[in-house]
Amino acid sequence: MNLTFTKMQGLGNDFIVLDGVRQPVQLSAETIRKLGDRHFGIGFDQLLLVEPAEREGVDFRYRIFNSDGGEVEHCGNGARCFVRFVLDQGLTEKTEIVVDTAKGVIKPRLEANGLVTVDMGEPRFLPAEIPFVADADQVIHALDVNGEHADITVVSMGNPHAVQVVDDVDSGIVERQGPVIESHPRFVQRVNAGFMQIINRGAVKLRVYERGAGETLACGTGACAAVVAGIRRGLLDPTVRVTTHGGDLTISWHGPGTPVMMTGPAVSVFTGQVQI
Amino acid sequence: MNLTFTKMQGLGNDFIVLDGVRQPVQLSAETIRKLGDRHFGIGFDQLLLVEPAEREGVDFRYRIFNSDGGEVEHCGNGARCFVRFVLDQGLTEKTEIVVDTAKGVIKPRLEANGLVTVDMGEPRFLPAEIPFVADADQVIHALDVNGEHADITVVSMGNPHAVQVVDDVDSGIVERQGPVIESHPRFVQRVNAGFMQIINRGAVKLRVYERGAGETLACGTGACAAVVAGIRRGLLDPTVRVTTHGGDLTISWHGPGTPVMMTGPAVSVFTGQVQI
Repeated sequence: MNLTFTKMQGLGNDFIVLDGVRQPVQLSAETIRKLGDRHFGIGFDQLLLVEPAEREGVDFRYRIFNSDGGEVEHCGNGARCFVRFVLDQGLTEKTEIVVDTAKGVIKPRLEANGLVTVDMGEPRFLPAEIPFVADADQVIHALDVNGEHADITVVSMGNPHAVQVVDDVDSGIVERQGPVIESHPRFVQRVNAGFMQIINRGAVKLRVYERGAGETLACGTGACAAVVAGIRRGLLDPTVRVTTHGGDLTISWHGPGTPVMMTGPAVSVFTGQVQI
Repeated sequence: MNLTFTKMQGLGNDFIVLDGVRQPVQLSAETIRKLGDRHFGIGFDQLLLVEPAEREGVDFRYRIFNSDGGEVEHCGNGARCFVRFVLDQGLTEKTEIVVDTAKGVIKPRLEANGLVTVDMGEPRFLPAEIPFVADADQVIHALDVNGEHADITVVSMGNPHAVQVVDDVDSGIVERQGPVIESHPRFVQRVNAGFMQIINRGAVKLRVYERGAGETLACGTGACAAVVAGIRRGLLDPTVRVTTHGGDLTISWHGPGTPVMMTGPAVSVFTGQVQI
């Protein structure tokens, strides 16, 4: 069959987005792997399939697959691309959209400036929720990184994060400590290692060494975890601009019991047709 | 402007091909770099621009650009994709096509089996033509590779190659010796290091550690150089199937004074439209 797709990206995290509302789309894991290959196929970090809602009060359903064919739960960059896609394609005129995902309902919305805001859920801090081996729930934990001392704040955004505040994200610390922290024995399911340089109470620079992936252009949950960690430490205001190698995100958090909101860009790069 | 393109690949070496015959195409180096980014753009190894012929007796002209925006001379994989493209698009009905390139005229042709054959030019062997520091023109030169002894045959296919015959291309020798040979001081402009495992007189397995690029899926000139080296050593027949990680090529050479002919696949992956 001939499939029409849109290639999109959010901070360099790139997607192909498929309209499963107007065209029936059935993809095997093998087909997704073939399409995902950057030399033999189209190439993408994730494939996003938009489907009709299956129940009242919901506008759409979407599913996200990694380029290895496996389905994943949720993705902030993907949710932003989803919003731009359904509006650009005329599948809806709403700017706040109610979507069923594998993780539950989300309500991403288009802002007046063209950026998209996504609810990233509530952060968790207890060591068992990360999971992290520690005696007590503390804002700052001391971690031994190959003999170096690191002060980390642990945060779960559904996935585990260890955030440090550093003087300079480009000093070489990411390359030196990132791989060690990522597989540190106290993080029993490994961890995303974040390195945050504070510019002022409303702006930071961030690099993240991601679990199983190494350093990436931008990590949405990593930006959320970093800002939450900075707020818990008393260093940041509730709304913070996060600059990454892939571009800028704005993260807002108003304290325990409230969700982290992430605002950022979503860009259509090109449209294509592929025979599958 | 809105640009239509075709994404193609030959042994995993991937191209976007643009029809500059039916649509005027003007691309700056900056636009090519943007399009070439695999996360923020379309992504490709090279961009191939097909243009109308500028003189009698020639069917087309083409130009090839790397994803850094620089123009390159010639590329066997690109020439194969060019042939499939102009035939698939109905720009010609000829199966042997005369094309002006930056390197001169080439005459690639479509075979009955759908593969495409490209003239890769005559090999050169003199040390000064490689360039390689050696006292005499010999079929086999001894090379000291970090204390290991290597028997290499040097070949220029317009670019320099050092070919070894090995028992097993997957023994770890590519990883161990590749980077050392690539920047060996006797190759003053560095070299592509080829490792060839001979299956029989008509079939080899090949891995190439490419100059400035590391190991790639398939190196067209590397396949030509390896077969020429094997023929010079008396180990191979004039026509040889070369198996690489990216797929199979057939290389033919009938001795000094004749060109090396390379036959292999060219595949259309998808078509797209992009705003530039």
